[in-house]
Amino acid sequence: MSVDPVLSRIDSDLPEALERLLALLRIPSISTDPAYDADCEKAADWLVDDLRSLGVEADKRPTPGHPMVVGHVDGDGPHLLFYGHYDVQPVDPVELWDHDPFDAQIADTPGGQVIRARGSSDDKGQLMTFIEACRAWKAVHGALPCRITFLFEGEEESGSPSLVPFLKDNASELGADVALICDTDLFDSRVPSIITQLRGLLGEEITITGPDRDLHSGSYGGIARNPIRVLTKILGGLHDDAGRVQVPGFYEGVPDLPPDMAAQWQALGFDADRFLGAVGLSQPAGEDGYTPLEMIWSRPTAEINGIVGGYTGDGFKTVLPSRASAKVSFRLVGTQDPLAIRDSFRAWVREQLPPDCTVAFADHGASPASRMETGHPAFAAARAALSDEWPDPAVFAGGGGSIPIAGYFKDILGLDSMLVGWAKADDQIHSPNEKYDVASFHKGVRSWARILDALTRL
Amino acid sequence: MSVDPVLSRIDSDLPEALERLLALLRIPSISTDPAYDADCEKAADWLVDDLRSLGVEADKRPTPGHPMVVGHVDGDGPHLLFYGHYDVQPVDPVELWDHDPFDAQIADTPGGQVIRARGSSDDKGQLMTFIEACRAWKAVHGALPCRITFLFEGEEESGSPSLVPFLKDNASELGADVALICDTDLFDSRVPSIITQLRGLLGEEITITGPDRDLHSGSYGGIARNPIRVLTKILGGLHDDAGRVQVPGFYEGVPDLPPDMAAQWQALGFDADRFLGAVGLSQPAGEDGYTPLEMIWSRPTAEINGIVGGYTGDGFKTVLPSRASAKVSFRLVGTQDPLAIRDSFRAWVREQLPPDCTVAFADHGASPASRMETGHPAFAAARAALSDEWPDPAVFAGGGGSIPIAGYFKDILGLDSMLVGWAKADDQIHSPNEKYDVASFHKGVRSWARILDALTRL
Repeated sequence: MSVDPVLSRIDSDLPEALERLLALLRIPSISTDPAYDADCEKAADWLVDDLRSLGVEADKRPTPGHPMVVGHVDGDGPHLLFYGHYDVQPVDPVELWDHDPFDAQIADTPGGQVIRARGSSDDKGQLMTFIEACRAWKAVHGALPCRITFLFEGEEESGSPSLVPFLKDNASELGADVALICDTDLFDSRVPSIITQLRGLLGEEITITGPDRDLHSGSYGGIARNPIRVLTKILGGLHDDAGRVQVPGFYEGVPDLPPDMAAQWQALGFDADRFLGAVGLSQPAGEDGYTPLEMIWSRPTAEINGIVGGYTGDGFKTVLPSRASAKVSFRLVGTQDPLAIRDSFRAWVREQLPPDCTVAFADHGASPASRMETGHPAFAAARAALSDEWPDPAVFAGGGGSIPIAGYFKDILGLDSMLVGWAKADDQIHSPNEKYDVASFHKGVRSWARILDALTRL
Repeated sequence: MSVDPVLSRIDSDLPEALERLLALLRIPSISTDPAYDADCEKAADWLVDDLRSLGVEADKRPTPGHPMVVGHVDGDGPHLLFYGHYDVQPVDPVELWDHDPFDAQIADTPGGQVIRARGSSDDKGQLMTFIEACRAWKAVHGALPCRITFLFEGEEESGSPSLVPFLKDNASELGADVALICDTDLFDSRVPSIITQLRGLLGEEITITGPDRDLHSGSYGGIARNPIRVLTKILGGLHDDAGRVQVPGFYEGVPDLPPDMAAQWQALGFDADRFLGAVGLSQPAGEDGYTPLEMIWSRPTAEINGIVGGYTGDGFKTVLPSRASAKVSFRLVGTQDPLAIRDSFRAWVREQLPPDCTVAFADHGASPASRMETGHPAFAAARAALSDEWPDPAVFAGGGGSIPIAGYFKDILGLDSMLVGWAKADDQIHSPNEKYDVASFHKGVRSWARILDALTRL
C-alpha cells in the first residue's frame, strides 16, 4: 500500500475535511461548565457517527462525567492507540472574541487561511487530522492501514477525573503497541516536533474566609480582618525576587538539565524575542539563571490563574468581603511529587493564616511530569516521516504543557506514547480568538498518513 | 408650639410612615450601575412629590449624573439645611440575600421588628425619619417648626461626583445656619451619638496589564509575566507585619489622639469583643498599639475592596491572563491630604512594576477627614434633646465612615454640620440582608421632633 495516492486524496478532499471539522467545532462542548453537558454528549455522538462511517466499531462509553468515545478497527501490522479530546475550554471573557466562539469559520489572514473557533486548535482540529488521514487511507486502499484503537476523552479541559478509572476498568480492551497523542505544537511553522518530555500539573483553589458576612469599610475598616489582604499577602510571597517558588520542598525531584539535552535545545535556535514579542512581551520572566526554553520546558512553575474577592463591578463599593479566593497551578518536572507538593502548599498557606481566618482548599487535579521512551523504534520512524513532509527536519522537543495521559498510558496500559501535533504558539488556545492554521490542518493530515505508512513498515 | 402632641402624632402615624418608607425602598436606585438610572430618577421624583405634600417647594435638579432634590420651606427661628441620600449600594452577591433586596418588608426577629431592604438603613430609612418628623409637626401645628432647606443626593454611594459643583453653583440658595446630616449610627441601641469626627476616603482602582492577550500556562508558564502575580506581590506589601501602610508619606498629617478625647472614648465602654463577635471575628486586626475605637475612628487605613483577574468560574482554567485589577480604598484622618496620598500610592505602585507590565489607575473619589465644631450651641441643645428620648444620655463619638458632605458644607457653604443617625452596626449596610430596626425608625422620627423643638428654642 503506497502513501502517495493517500496524500493526493487528502489534497483533493481538503474542502470537505474542513467542512466536517467546522461541523464538530459548532458544538460548544465546554466540559468544565455543567450548562454544556448536553453539548459534550452531542460532540461524542458526532465522533461515534464519524468513526462508524470509516468502518470503525465505535461507541459512546458512559463515565461519571462526560462520555468517552472508543472505537476499534482490525488490521495487520502494529496496533496503535490514538488519543484526542473533544471537550474545549470555556470562552470567557467572551466580549474579547471577534466573533461567536462556536460560529466556526475559515478566514483569510496575512499569515494564511485559518480555522476560527474555540477548540479549532485544542483539540478538535488536531484530532480530526488523524481521522481524516484514516478516511483518505480507507478511500484509497479500502481499509485502514493497520489495527487502530481510538480513544476520545471529553474531560481533558476539566482535569480528566474519569480517565484513570476508565483506563483501569478497560485496560485489556485499550491495550496496543504504541500510543499516538495529537495535542501538541509544531516547533515552528517549518519544523514539526515530537515531544519527549512534558510538565506535570497540580491545580489548587484556595478560599479564605474572614468575617462571616460582607462588611462596610467605614464601620469596620481597620479593625476587621480583610480576606483579600490575607490572600494577596500569602500569594504575594509565593515567589522570591529571583522567581523561586517558596513552598517548602517544592524543588525536590527537579533535575538539572542533562548536558546533551541542553546542547540539543541550544541547537534548536529558539527565538525568545519573537516568542514573547508575539504576545506583547519582551523579557523572560522566569527564575533567574535559566534559559527561555528551560523556563517553559524543564523548570517547574507556580502561577495564579484566577483571583476574585469583594466588589469587582463598575464603580466602587467600600466593602470588606467575607471571602476571597484564587486558583493556583503548579507545572511540575522530573520526579516532583504532585501530592507531596499539594500537602506542602496547603500547610504553607495554613501557617500564614492570621487569627480569625479559615481556609478551604479545592483539588483541581494532580499529575506528575512525564518523559517519553525515545528509544522505541516508532520515534525514529515517525521523525523520518515528518521530515519528509515538512520544510525542515523534525526535532525532539520538550513541552511546557501537561498531558498526563502519556503517564497514565505508561502506568496503566504499559504503553509508550508519541506526542505529535500541528498547533502553533499563536493559536490562542485557552484565550479569546482561538484559531488553527489551515496549513497545520492540511499538513497535519498528510503527516499522519506518512506516519501511519512508516509505522506499518516497521 | 409644644413637641408632646407631635410625639403622639408620630406614634399613631407609625404604620403609615412605615408604608411610605417601604414604597421608597421598592425603587432600586443603585447609583453606581447605569442600568438603574431610571430608578434613581424615580426615587428623586418620589421625594419631590412627598416634600410637596408637606407644603415644601421642591424640585428635581439636574446634574451630569443623578439629580439632586432641593426643597425649601419658610418659617421663623433657625434656618436648617437637612441632607440625606436616596441612592443605594449595589446588591451583589444577590444570592446571599434571604429575599429580593427591593421587595421591602417588615419582619419580626428575635431582636424586634426590622425593615428589610437595600437602603433601609443607608440611607432611605434615615432620611425619612426627618421627613416624618416634619410631617407630624405640620399635621399638629399646621406648619413646619422653622425655615428648612432639604437637599437629597443621588450619588453618595458612587463618590458624589456632582455634589461639589452643585454646592458651588447653588451656594447662596443652599445657605443656612446649621446643617443636619442623617447617615450615621447610634453608639448602641440605648445610646444615641452625635458624630464629631469622620474619616476621609480615597478610592483607587488599579489595573495591571502584562501580555497583550490571555495565555495558556502550559505554553507560557514560567516565561511570561503574569499580572495577577504582579498585583498580589504589590498589594501583599501594602502593609507591614505591624499593620502599617507602606505607601511613602501616608502618615503625614495623622494626629495623635488628644488625651481628653482618649479619656472620653475610654469612658464609652466600647465592647470590641461584642462588636467583632457579631460578625464572626474575635481579634482587632488593625495597627499594633492602638485601641479598637482608635482603629475604627482615628487611625487611617488601606483596604482592598475588590480584586479580580483570570478565570474565576467553576472548575479550573490554566490561563495566564492579560490583566488583573483591584479596587483599593484609604480611610483618612486628621489633615492627611487625599491627593498627595493618591500621587504617592500611584508612584509606589509604578516603582514596583516589573518589565513588560503597564498599570492604569482610575479615580473613585478623594475627600479629606472632617472634624465638627462641637462648640456650636446646636450641639449641646441636640445632645440634651436626644438624651430626653433615649434610655441613656447621648454621646459625642467618632465615626469610621466617610461623609465628605460635612467638609463640603463647611468649605463651600460655611456651614457647621451636625451628624445624627439611628443606624446600628448590625444593619449590614453595603452587605446582603440590609435591615433597619423599626425601633430605630420610630425613635429616630421622635428624636428629630425633639431636636427641631430644641433648635427652634435656641
